Amino acid sequence: MSTSQSHPLDAALALASSAPGQYAGQTSPSYWNMVGPFGGITAATLLQAVLQHPDCLGEPLSLTVNYAGALEAGPFTLQAVPVRTNRSTQHWTLAISQAGADGQPVVTTTATAVTATRRDTWSASDQPLPPVPAPAQCPQAEAFFGSEWLRRYEMRLVEGSLPTQWDGSGDSSLTRLWMRDAPARALDFCALAAMADIFFPRVWLRRAQMVPAGTVSITIYFHASRAQLAATGAGYLLGQARAQEFRHGFFDHSAQLWNEAGTLLATSHQIVYYKE
Amino acid sequence: MSTSQSHPLDAALALASSAPGQYAGQTSPSYWNMVGPFGGITAATLLQAVLQHPDCLGEPLSLTVNYAGALEAGPFTLQAVPVRTNRSTQHWTLAISQAGADGQPVVTTTATAVTATRRDTWSASDQPLPPVPAPAQCPQAEAFFGSEWLRRYEMRLVEGSLPTQWDGSGDSSLTRLWMRDAPARALDFCALAAMADIFFPRVWLRRAQMVPAGTVSITIYFHASRAQLAATGAGYLLGQARAQEFRHGFFDHSAQLWNEAGTLLATSHQIVYYKE
Repeated sequence: MSTSQSHPLDAALALASSAPGQYAGQTSPSYWNMVGPFGGITAATLLQAVLQHPDCLGEPLSLTVNYAGALEAGPFTLQAVPVRTNRSTQHWTLAISQAGADGQPVVTTTATAVTATRRDTWSASDQPLPPVPAPAQCPQAEAFFGSEWLRRYEMRLVEGSLPTQWDGSGDSSLTRLWMRDAPARALDFCALAAMADIFFPRVWLRRAQMVPAGTVSITIYFHASRAQLAATGAGYLLGQARAQEFRHGFFDHSAQLWNEAGTLLATSHQIVYYKE
Repeated sequence: MSTSQSHPLDAALALASSAPGQYAGQTSPSYWNMVGPFGGITAATLLQAVLQHPDCLGEPLSLTVNYAGALEAGPFTLQAVPVRTNRSTQHWTLAISQAGADGQPVVTTTATAVTATRRDTWSASDQPLPPVPAPAQCPQAEAFFGSEWLRRYEMRLVEGSLPTQWDGSGDSSLTRLWMRDAPARALDFCALAAMADIFFPRVWLRRAQMVPAGTVSITIYFHASRAQLAATGAGYLLGQARAQEFRHGFFDHSAQLWNEAGTLLATSHQIVYYKE
């Protein structure tokens, strides 16, 4: 395991704050996707800004990120505003901007987040970890495609890998895989947020056809406390994603992330553009 | 069926615009919940502002609403900003404010939305309408509790009604019900958005215990086109909701809404506060 100082995730999430809620960052080549950063690293960066804010109350509860336009490689500014603070919840609005061709700021990403102080209450889990083989019994997946960010994760496929035959023969959109940061790193909220977006587009699997696709909006609900993340450590998470509806150029999927002990750490949903 | 001029939903959604994106509205006694408006009517009002905006592109694709604080009965202001317009998607940020005790505006609700122009593409439905009896075969539910907004909906329970014995004996969080506006009204995007929040708190069903609970954040993905809503008309929708995780004072649920013909019109998710 790397120390946090040297881990590429921590380097990618580094933000300099000029005033409360005003941050400057840099896109990270380590988490580059095809035409912009991996969406998960953008989500994690927004959450990082909330957690670094001096007025932040409690722990992450929900995060919605809207990918309005691809970030270009280089510097960006991030604004995080605690719009309203209640006794046990705090509501945030966030935006990332970059300088446009004329030098004026252009919004690339909008987001909202809720943080909360959480208490011990009656609890129940209605989405148990599915019966799957242990990580060590699952083959380590080659990077699905050429994007650099795929090298930042160790993925061990259980089912629903990227098709090997792109012949239109798909009939399911379900993927299950064990995952963790590469190199291994103790789990925290930002790492969890990034992993919630790890799933390749469901439309590729369901159609067994590769078409242009990109996340438009993702929502992540955090169920884990900081103590449960600490207990997860650098262990694997099981990620599961399944689409619901593909229509008129957009599909949605639902996802769950459990740790090896079977605790559901986060649930997530996204709506994704696809072509044709 | 009422004409749209006289329907309580249209009256509740009435907004006066003083400038593009600046609206004034009034909370509606017809859709009052316990300590504020029904969350669904707030979501529908935000969507109404987007759809009335002179610059609105396309049809609703996603909507996330964060309930930062209860609206008080009376006037409110709503701001809707098209932050970024792309070729086929448009990204919106929204907020509702009311005058606080000192006369200064207080944010009660934040939201983001995406609208999109949608095209004919390959399509598939991976969440089929479950096998359920037709609406006429299902008993019409009495209002679950005393809130006025419950009288604005006809609900015909299939399974997972409100417990009749509050004895802690619950073991499932699944509810399925047929629903439509009362009086009946042709479906549109705002009516669909409101109905996505119709489900009583899953924690009541799962525990068979009534505890204080309230939605913190809801996300709705719209899969239907305007033409599919028109084809649905004033027919019933089947709504289904099921929780995933209850922990530390918050739970999430996933929901689906189909029309009688079996078309999945919308999917939705929310995270909900509960006590104890």
